[in-house]
Amino acid sequence: MFKKVLVANRGEIALRVIRACREIGVPSVAVYSEADVDSMHVQLADEAVCIGSGPSKDSYLMPDRIIAAAEITEADAIHPGYGFLSENARFVEICESCDIKFIGPRADTIRQMGDKNTARATALENGVPVTPGSDGILESAEHGLELAKEIGFPVMIKATAGGGGRGMRPSFSEDDFIDLYNQASQEAIACFGNGECYLEKLVINPHHVEFQIFGDTHGNAIQLGERDCSMQRRNQKIIEECPSPLITPELRKRMADASVSLVKNIGYENAGTIEYLVNAEATDFYFMEMNTRIQVEHPVTEEVMGCELIKEQIRVAAGEALSHHVLEATPRGWAIECRINAEDPYNNFAPSPGKIDLWYAPGGKGVRVDTHVYSGYSVPPYYDSMIAKLICTGATREITIARMNRALREFMVTGIKTTIPFQIEIINHPDFIAGKYDIAWVGRFLEEKIAEKS
Amino acid sequence: MFKKVLVANRGEIALRVIRACREIGVPSVAVYSEADVDSMHVQLADEAVCIGSGPSKDSYLMPDRIIAAAEITEADAIHPGYGFLSENARFVEICESCDIKFIGPRADTIRQMGDKNTARATALENGVPVTPGSDGILESAEHGLELAKEIGFPVMIKATAGGGGRGMRPSFSEDDFIDLYNQASQEAIACFGNGECYLEKLVINPHHVEFQIFGDTHGNAIQLGERDCSMQRRNQKIIEECPSPLITPELRKRMADASVSLVKNIGYENAGTIEYLVNAEATDFYFMEMNTRIQVEHPVTEEVMGCELIKEQIRVAAGEALSHHVLEATPRGWAIECRINAEDPYNNFAPSPGKIDLWYAPGGKGVRVDTHVYSGYSVPPYYDSMIAKLICTGATREITIARMNRALREFMVTGIKTTIPFQIEIINHPDFIAGKYDIAWVGRFLEEKIAEKS
Repeated sequence: MFKKVLVANRGEIALRVIRACREIGVPSVAVYSEADVDSMHVQLADEAVCIGSGPSKDSYLMPDRIIAAAEITEADAIHPGYGFLSENARFVEICESCDIKFIGPRADTIRQMGDKNTARATALENGVPVTPGSDGILESAEHGLELAKEIGFPVMIKATAGGGGRGMRPSFSEDDFIDLYNQASQEAIACFGNGECYLEKLVINPHHVEFQIFGDTHGNAIQLGERDCSMQRRNQKIIEECPSPLITPELRKRMADASVSLVKNIGYENAGTIEYLVNAEATDFYFMEMNTRIQVEHPVTEEVMGCELIKEQIRVAAGEALSHHVLEATPRGWAIECRINAEDPYNNFAPSPGKIDLWYAPGGKGVRVDTHVYSGYSVPPYYDSMIAKLICTGATREITIARMNRALREFMVTGIKTTIPFQIEIINHPDFIAGKYDIAWVGRFLEEKIAEKS
Repeated sequence: MFKKVLVANRGEIALRVIRACREIGVPSVAVYSEADVDSMHVQLADEAVCIGSGPSKDSYLMPDRIIAAAEITEADAIHPGYGFLSENARFVEICESCDIKFIGPRADTIRQMGDKNTARATALENGVPVTPGSDGILESAEHGLELAKEIGFPVMIKATAGGGGRGMRPSFSEDDFIDLYNQASQEAIACFGNGECYLEKLVINPHHVEFQIFGDTHGNAIQLGERDCSMQRRNQKIIEECPSPLITPELRKRMADASVSLVKNIGYENAGTIEYLVNAEATDFYFMEMNTRIQVEHPVTEEVMGCELIKEQIRVAAGEALSHHVLEATPRGWAIECRINAEDPYNNFAPSPGKIDLWYAPGGKGVRVDTHVYSGYSVPPYYDSMIAKLICTGATREITIARMNRALREFMVTGIKTTIPFQIEIINHPDFIAGKYDIAWVGRFLEEKIAEKS
């Protein structure tokens, strides 16, 4: 086991990793920006090192400072959390060159699956269905238009370096294809420095269903069930649940088998997620992408499967085999996660940083809150607006929704705006209660609300 | 289902019941004393009625005021929680006479099992082992002494109306028997208005292992596994766990069968607990008493069995059958509860009421906190000193202890003293870690500490 783990992240995920370290008896080191000096992850780690000023590019995204912090504190492993450097293959190599273990998959795996086009080809090679598409980088907008006509509209134009909804444009006809291609490509150049695009057939009203997978260095390659993350606003997940209310046992089996086959064939080590689109009829699934890291929504899997993903990540990175808790995990009950963001849902989700005067979070049976904030904490303006995850668990989906409803209403937060009222609206909507929502649902819901007002 | 449930209690259990009501969609009414006006149970209920001043005898123990509150608010059911009026058969009859459903067993059951001597006889009749004893009320101290010689010392002198450690005295020899008998009897007269005593053989260094049971009006009579509550200070439970680290599968089976048989034969309705003593060798068990109510420590059963006892209580009282979640419950993992009291563990556990300046409770994976307190809340001096329950759950006992250790250390409480540092001492003690502790362990531990100091 490691002597000390440095957590190269902030917010709730930093706290999550620090807690896991404490429970397995490994000292932890927090790194923090000047803006995060009062974050609970700094308080609860065994040591803490300031690595720069507020903006991520001046702290959390600086490999050299993180490596220096690890060397100063004699940490022999780094947990990257999600976001920031978690899917940066170069950072993994830097860690290796400094004899620091990166807690995550190998650099070559991250590279292979991080490039969307290579990932798609890898999926295809391993018998995982993908949406019909260009099967390669488009030479030009005109080349794309030709292929789009062959595949049939609508199509999705995707930048190979894209992510988080950036560098993506749907095109429904020949007329606007060229314009949209150029928009996607330019956005990708601005955000990721690479404007190469490819094409995929656009599945109408699909669901986002992802599989939690895990591999170790002892030949174990497993899946731990799915998460339904179809409740999204502008490609940002809002609510996730385990299991999916959509897919059938038969489809679940096919998706699970495909996932395990991919994990096994690419020799995947550590935790990862394979994201799929499922058509509205829940008959077909298509590989979307693989996230070579822990996900925000991993707790819903933990609750249902009765296992602990962060601890397994650390153990597997230390060379241990996956524990029997994970290898023998079987599902029990239903779990839903609501992301609580510091945003004003009634002002176009404008970020709402600032001081939290009062923070009272719900508790009791079946309620888990993962957060780094507290009464008196100031939400800095520099980062992702998520300030807490509320995870509710119960024997059935109905029980879990009722609990989520209760728990969301128990929150008392003053000083900043949060998405809690919006989450309450969704949780009580007949479509959500019926489990009938796809990845475009939130967009339609918001449009209808605007239409009602005017 | 009921139209409205009044919660005739305070503190965390009031909040627990209010949350359960909210989750099943039944409005709830809180009652509160003037000292509890700022308690979270008052905030989170749908309605709240003040029923008197601080001391329990002027509010929570007044059936007439509670009934009046129910009638004013048109509540058609009352959940008594634990303590206060929860095992008062007369109160159940008053509720019935007012057409208000008491959420608990029938009055005759409470009477039958509430009187310790009758309960013992009932256990015997139903094939549940009891410790050898007087099998009836002692006529006098002298009569007791004669019987004690027959049974063999040591013996326990117990007031039939006793409870919470009051009206009990162990006697190890003939010399002090008469004095101890008189002490127990007089204490019982003072506390319960009834000085009648009986005798039981004293089992040396026993464990306290109790079974959660449930019956409904549809003929279901079940047990939901055991809780080990051997970690006690002066007969007050401090830490409880599910399952027991002591008993074997074979003994568990025998105890479970005896428990179900008793529940079935007395036609028990609603939730209850049968408390047993188990000898140090874990070969024999003896009926101790039955609690005809929900227990403080019920969450450890909920966590391991994946069920919800308060909701089942409400449903069963409303005439529904036990849900399949409970009927088909199977254990998963391990759960431990630490009671957090407002007491100074380093000043003989003196009560420490007063204003809590800062209350930061732990969170994250496997951590459940049931509490009515928050930053700025004042702990009134009138009640039981328990201010929170910390329940940790994990795949194994070892994982759960590590989590409890982590969670206890995350607490930040200022303004009052709490038992958290003492809980940390116990959780880290080799005896606790080895699962080797009996009901006298805390007493010995504290004596050793005192001896070390002097």
